[in-house]
Amino acid sequence: MTIPTFNDIQEAHFRIQKRIHRTPVLTSQSINAITGAELFFKCENFQKVGAFKYRGAVNAVLSLTEEEARNGVATHSSGNHAAALALAAKIRGISCYVAMPRTAPPVKKDAVKGYGAVITFCEPTLESREQTLEEILKQTGATFIHPFNYLPVICGQGTAAKEFLEEEPGLEIMLVPVGGGGILSGSAISSKAINPDIKVYGCEPLNADDACRSFHTGQLLPSVHPDTIADGLLTSLGPLTFEIIRQKVDDIFTVSEKSIILAMQMIWQRMKIIIEPSSATALAVVLEKPSLFRSKRTGIILTGGNVDLAHLPFGER
Amino acid sequence: MTIPTFNDIQEAHFRIQKRIHRTPVLTSQSINAITGAELFFKCENFQKVGAFKYRGAVNAVLSLTEEEARNGVATHSSGNHAAALALAAKIRGISCYVAMPRTAPPVKKDAVKGYGAVITFCEPTLESREQTLEEILKQTGATFIHPFNYLPVICGQGTAAKEFLEEEPGLEIMLVPVGGGGILSGSAISSKAINPDIKVYGCEPLNADDACRSFHTGQLLPSVHPDTIADGLLTSLGPLTFEIIRQKVDDIFTVSEKSIILAMQMIWQRMKIIIEPSSATALAVVLEKPSLFRSKRTGIILTGGNVDLAHLPFGER
Repeated sequence: MTIPTFNDIQEAHFRIQKRIHRTPVLTSQSINAITGAELFFKCENFQKVGAFKYRGAVNAVLSLTEEEARNGVATHSSGNHAAALALAAKIRGISCYVAMPRTAPPVKKDAVKGYGAVITFCEPTLESREQTLEEILKQTGATFIHPFNYLPVICGQGTAAKEFLEEEPGLEIMLVPVGGGGILSGSAISSKAINPDIKVYGCEPLNADDACRSFHTGQLLPSVHPDTIADGLLTSLGPLTFEIIRQKVDDIFTVSEKSIILAMQMIWQRMKIIIEPSSATALAVVLEKPSLFRSKRTGIILTGGNVDLAHLPFGER
Repeated sequence: MTIPTFNDIQEAHFRIQKRIHRTPVLTSQSINAITGAELFFKCENFQKVGAFKYRGAVNAVLSLTEEEARNGVATHSSGNHAAALALAAKIRGISCYVAMPRTAPPVKKDAVKGYGAVITFCEPTLESREQTLEEILKQTGATFIHPFNYLPVICGQGTAAKEFLEEEPGLEIMLVPVGGGGILSGSAISSKAINPDIKVYGCEPLNADDACRSFHTGQLLPSVHPDTIADGLLTSLGPLTFEIIRQKVDDIFTVSEKSIILAMQMIWQRMKIIIEPSSATALAVVLEKPSLFRSKRTGIILTGGNVDLAHLPFGER
């Protein structure tokens, strides 16, 4: 299996850099004091459409030939990838078709509609999504842009860690949430190319721990009934992201739901920024394993900030 | 009545600049598209203790003589001023005493305690607060640092608009929330000194509209039973802030509770930053009076970001 090189990511960055936000890197004295680590946060929650997914989507769309572009792009997604692809297609002036579970949060449906994509609703199962997408592809001739298991998408996602290390070259550890593995695999390629000594760890909910189990057994094992508040991490690795993660990632750590909520709350309260639960898995790893990070210059990719404000996990005390 | 000059604010800025964050100015393409205005947001929610109040508190504490400082500082406050004064006192290594209503939100009590202040709880009435404070001052000899009606505090607050106009000199309008009037009066002095043509407007909840009524009648009228989600704006103007506002502010606009919540939600969702309801009054004015701001380069001071995450105003839809 051919995996992307850092050169591919550099080309992707050149292709998309005028289309994306170069997101800021923030620090928090109070979270450093609590954790004993020296943390740096790459704020992809401030990226267009509120998530790193825009990097991969816009790289994929801009990489299409004129002929491919003519028939548009399509995907199945319940969330950030669909919004990202819809906006990327709009920027290029081509059509975008999305197969979306009818149970997706209204805020995510609205976002995709708002960018002008054509939505076909399906049942909230992988089978229904894939079947609906198949129909769309047949009818439209659109190019399928997979949310993660697709080379141009992975290269786009890898540009976040590239920017991060350009700004903070002294990072010793890079922590990246892992769902389908797009941002983890892209980050690992960039990070190891820029600094071969850096440790790259995936961060995963214990309740959706397919990447951890696949990594440690060496076999691609899908999640069975994943159930986590980190709704962006419900997906399982694909063959391509798995291969990159095997080659480039140092380890994958799992965290409890309780730690994810605690980490999310800490970032909201201390940093005054909004992140989605998936983003909080990285700080959750630091909270659960403080000794690994003590006094280490640790980079955390905050992957997105799209939450349904009417349904937050912060209860009465 | 002597009102502070821009020179006083410049001196304050020189005194405090190494102690405060120079907070960023953010923009939002999507909120510009919704409002038709060209908005710039000065993010005092990222200031130390999560609010602009730290500027005034640290200026007041650093302005004390050695002899005054020896007995510490004291105040009555349910919120951000108390936390700000506590941290400022800690930085200078002096004592801080706070009379605080026993009904204050736990998150605010914890913040003040966390900075090492001595809290005396009182009833949630102005009388009880003032009486409790009187006792503290008698016992300790501390200097009372009023939350807003106090020259060094106003000068400290004025440094936010000074930084804002240094970064965005082309602003045509400055929108500032008004409660006790510290940030509005300080902002007005700085703004008019830097650009005499700029319009400075106060933004106030209709349900706590003392500043608007005082401004338009020319008489200092306190709020009667103010009741607003913008808990930082419950206070009424003092004689000093009223005098400055009369001289320097162009108008004061009131907004509904519904607009405040809508504006707050818009900033959370679109900008992915956390602001408290008081901060949202300024965008609420833009939403209620769009024609005043169409295509105008408008500065908004986001005054703070301290909210109780367990009690948010975003309901089910």
